[in-house]
Amino acid sequence: MPLVRISVSETRDAAYRARISEAVHRALVETIGIPPDDLFHVIAAHAPEGLIFDRSYLGVSRSSGFLVVEITLRRGRALEKKRALYRAIADNVHAATGTRIEDVMIVLSENEPSDWSFGAGIAQYAPET
Amino acid sequence: MPLVRISVSETRDAAYRARISEAVHRALVETIGIPPDDLFHVIAAHAPEGLIFDRSYLGVSRSSGFLVVEITLRRGRALEKKRALYRAIADNVHAATGTRIEDVMIVLSENEPSDWSFGAGIAQYAPET
Amino acid sequence: MPLVRISVSETRDAAYRARISEAVHRALVETIGIPPDDLFHVIAAHAPEGLIFDRSYLGVSRSSGFLVVEITLRRGRALEKKRALYRAIADNVHAATGTRIEDVMIVLSENEPSDWSFGAGIAQYAPET
Repeated sequence: MPLVRISVSETRDAAYRARISEAVHRALVETIGIPPDDLFHVIAAHAPEGLIFDRSYLGVSRSSGFLVVEITLRRGRALEKKRALYRAIADNVHAATGTRIEDVMIVLSENEPSDWSFGAGIAQYAPET
Repeated sequence: MPLVRISVSETRDAAYRARISEAVHRALVETIGIPPDDLFHVIAAHAPEGLIFDRSYLGVSRSSGFLVVEITLRRGRALEKKRALYRAIADNVHAATGTRIEDVMIVLSENEPSDWSFGAGIAQYAPET
Repeated sequence: MPLVRISVSETRDAAYRARISEAVHRALVETIGIPPDDLFHVIAAHAPEGLIFDRSYLGVSRSSGFLVVEITLRRGRALEKKRALYRAIADNVHAATGTRIEDVMIVLSENEPSDWSFGAGIAQYAPET
């Protein structure tokens, strides 16, 4: 279910982008119980000047390795689960690519079970009874 | 009102993308009462490796024709309306382009009337009285 | 906190995009109290045919200068604040770039404090106590 959108610099090659995607997916599986085959990511590459960010907001030191992970998912994860997810995404991305954990921004948007169709024109999470 | 973002492979040409957009818009008009002139779409083309998806999650058989339709719209459509919308988008996209209905993923995100400005710096759905 | 996604035509050069971004950020600071260093924008350039819009919906006259500003932010801004934000974004973008105010579409999506990690794997707006 989660739909993940990852915005990275176009200077990062395809292998790097694939490792980021795998790292984020593994964190979703490990921390909030996403099934391993529930994998839907869009990776968007931007010109370096298309990713604009402050280098120290909230005391986090960001560098040119900055990237944004946006995740749309069903409402209802507890705060503790979200904290574990953020930690795992940052750690996994760092381990897989060397990206600094300070450079991994994450934003969640929650919606409802009726808001998903995984193909075939069906609302799989809100099935007809 | 809906803002529609369609993510497709860059291997799909401009004519294909235009047909997808028309097909999605027609489904919105036919099933949930969107006015015909309420048309706002962003079509983003991605490198094939930028669209990552499982080929069988929930028993839906997806292929390289996979695409994602994200729709931001005002809260309040009934489940039955959403089901009709998913069916119509998949069917219309298939009829217009030959894309398999299994390859059409749809994700809705709902917001409020006050969250829209259609230009001129005005909140057209939450007007001053 | 706001995450701002600006979708413009690829015919607009990097200097134009930077001015749009600065103009939107200034509006957020001036009208809804965003800290000046709370700056996170993704600017996506699209082929002209990738931005599809009606030229007169709701009586607003749009032109080829059309662009979309999507803002994800924490829930809770009052309607009056949102109205002031729309006005300021349109006016600032016009002053900075000459873009017509009718060509500036704005869509907000609200989420919760727990939905943000600004790097380092931490939920900075929902800290552990």
